[in-house]
Amino acid sequence: MAILKGACIIGQSGGPTAVINASAYGAIRAALDSDVITKVYGAAHGIKGVLDDVLYIMDEEDADELALLRNTPSSELGSCRYKMKDPDVDDTDYKRILEIFKKYDVRYFFYNGGNDSMDTCNKISKYMQKVGYECRVMGIPKTIDNDLFGTDHCPGFASAAKYIATSCMEVSKDATVYDNAQITVVEIMGRHAGWLAASAALASHFGAGPDLIYLPEVDFSMEQFIADVEKIYATKNKVLIAVSEGIHYADGRFVSEAEVSATDGFGHAQLGGLAVKLADVLKKQTGAKVRGIELSLLQRCGSHLASKTDVDEAEMAGRVAVEAATAGETDKMVAFERVMENGQYTCKPVLLPLSSVANYEKKVPLEWINEEHNNVLEAFIDYALPLIQGEPERATEFSLPRYARLKKVVAK
Amino acid sequence: MAILKGACIIGQSGGPTAVINASAYGAIRAALDSDVITKVYGAAHGIKGVLDDVLYIMDEEDADELALLRNTPSSELGSCRYKMKDPDVDDTDYKRILEIFKKYDVRYFFYNGGNDSMDTCNKISKYMQKVGYECRVMGIPKTIDNDLFGTDHCPGFASAAKYIATSCMEVSKDATVYDNAQITVVEIMGRHAGWLAASAALASHFGAGPDLIYLPEVDFSMEQFIADVEKIYATKNKVLIAVSEGIHYADGRFVSEAEVSATDGFGHAQLGGLAVKLADVLKKQTGAKVRGIELSLLQRCGSHLASKTDVDEAEMAGRVAVEAATAGETDKMVAFERVMENGQYTCKPVLLPLSSVANYEKKVPLEWINEEHNNVLEAFIDYALPLIQGEPERATEFSLPRYARLKKVVAK
Repeated sequence: MAILKGACIIGQSGGPTAVINASAYGAIRAALDSDVITKVYGAAHGIKGVLDDVLYIMDEEDADELALLRNTPSSELGSCRYKMKDPDVDDTDYKRILEIFKKYDVRYFFYNGGNDSMDTCNKISKYMQKVGYECRVMGIPKTIDNDLFGTDHCPGFASAAKYIATSCMEVSKDATVYDNAQITVVEIMGRHAGWLAASAALASHFGAGPDLIYLPEVDFSMEQFIADVEKIYATKNKVLIAVSEGIHYADGRFVSEAEVSATDGFGHAQLGGLAVKLADVLKKQTGAKVRGIELSLLQRCGSHLASKTDVDEAEMAGRVAVEAATAGETDKMVAFERVMENGQYTCKPVLLPLSSVANYEKKVPLEWINEEHNNVLEAFIDYALPLIQGEPERATEFSLPRYARLKKVVAK
Repeated sequence: MAILKGACIIGQSGGPTAVINASAYGAIRAALDSDVITKVYGAAHGIKGVLDDVLYIMDEEDADELALLRNTPSSELGSCRYKMKDPDVDDTDYKRILEIFKKYDVRYFFYNGGNDSMDTCNKISKYMQKVGYECRVMGIPKTIDNDLFGTDHCPGFASAAKYIATSCMEVSKDATVYDNAQITVVEIMGRHAGWLAASAALASHFGAGPDLIYLPEVDFSMEQFIADVEKIYATKNKVLIAVSEGIHYADGRFVSEAEVSATDGFGHAQLGGLAVKLADVLKKQTGAKVRGIELSLLQRCGSHLASKTDVDEAEMAGRVAVEAATAGETDKMVAFERVMENGQYTCKPVLLPLSSVANYEKKVPLEWINEEHNNVLEAFIDYALPLIQGEPERATEFSLPRYARLKKVVAK
């Protein structure tokens, strides 16, 4: 493959994670170190930064500050949720991107995100091929939801899983401290895939976690839910329940959005999330003290509890994307293959065609969910436990996190 | 003072914290090591365990497991919220306690808790004196609320403050990632005192925290609140707000309980907490994307983010209580005096009469709150920052917390 000299753009997209900046660091560092990449730009707010011509010059950043990206949560370059149109219908954005690529002599484009971002990445790659502009395009995976197709797991998932498991252990300790009856419902992210809610089972595995876990992979029944809770409530007067925000009835309605008029007695629109709603239903059913806890944004940006395995793999994904592209690859996403040898986990990066991953969703296998549909089986623990291992070094300042402080010099 | 030989009881009471078990460990370890304490009992669920005759024999526990209490959140012996009657009105409970004390030859009683627990402790102490039963009674302070009178700060506060500050930093990173307008309201514990909500200012101090902080020490005005938010919203389209759960209107009504019919447009009872309610008000006012986050139980049991200073001081408080009692002290609470020498913080234990601390509440000084009543001043940072320093060693098992596993052998 011919050597391709030129600038690169790195963009972050979709919901932030605890380690997406580690991927950015892996890519930026490798690009800065590359002989063929002439300039390294970070796009402000993903593809919107390209469209708006707001590119940060990464070559201007201090190396030590860049390294702090490894433990800075959220997307330091800014993110977006921008859905690209089909270029055959409207190619305005694509023409603009091409214009910017030409303006800065961009020959490498690295995009870090989830399903929608891989779709963006794929469309840009195909468009550049169609118009004959030589540019190598690589996707870097990211999503706490862990629902990207073709990869064993996604950077960001494990750190969120570790946050969720640790928090569930702590809540489990707290919620059982009095001798009176108490029911606690913990709401966990995951609209369509239950990987994160399932991670609460890691807490139970170590003796302090939820009694029941409900995932969106199977239909939810309020009657069965109440029966499940009452069964446990009858034997011990404490019940801890983890629910995925995406649980839905058999007819497809999200429980979080459906009115629960039969049980709540009034049936008007309610503020507050699913946890509060379910806690309220259980309070009326049992009379117990109930509490709904929503892990909210905390679960996806909890970099203080990041998995070292996750941070290292995220960084590797960024680095591999750059190294593969400069070696001639294009139109691919970096994916992870799990290698188990003598019980030891290692993660091998592989490259998948972008078109094979965009727009597919990977869910928790049904055979990992128990027969009663209210917990996950050992297979899930075997899958998730290796991913959450290790504590990364964290920079602190007066015992609080010290995040990267970038200059963000905008290219003219 | 004469040597007093006999057994001791250690009880935990009130809301759990990340370090109340460190105090229990300090007391239990010192009691086990003492020459005059003949047996060490842990009361199941505080004073209720005494009344119900459910005492765990601490002498039977493995030393290494006991040491893990240093980083086990919540109250491992169980807690209670049991209000003792005035013994002059009804002395039934006191007679029962005396009976149990005599049954097990209990000559030392250590009670670890907040305001109400110090009241319990005080009443028991005075009753034993009245009936002439020789028993040394010591209070060990604990409360994330930091509202105990007579002590510079309370064990438990600093670890919660550190959790709150770190979480606010992470949320601040996450909630500013998109380029669209976003307003986030974080609800923090503290019904009457604003120490915990004020701790969010530690995050702002290090560049990633709330723009506005509202405490229960001053009256809340919804109109002023909206004006404060809109002012910041007009200059940057992201606003992060921390509110204490105890904020109240000038007439005393808690904002969390009052209907906000003028602004919410319907005025019926709402599920969900204060954060959700305020976020809803702001959504209607600004049209921005809003999010309410309740730190909930997570903030008081987040032992994975505990302050080493707090853990060490909590343990010291337990140890000092036992050592002082065996040396002849009684009827006291261990308190902390802050010593600042050459800018270096140290904490000196002092003993206060129980009657001087029970039933008083310490609030954030008004001179530490800004003129606009929407933030705290540098004086608060100077106060809180030394308390959150240091990361304790944490036992882990497959990168998840390894908590103490006690046998809890019940005394017959």
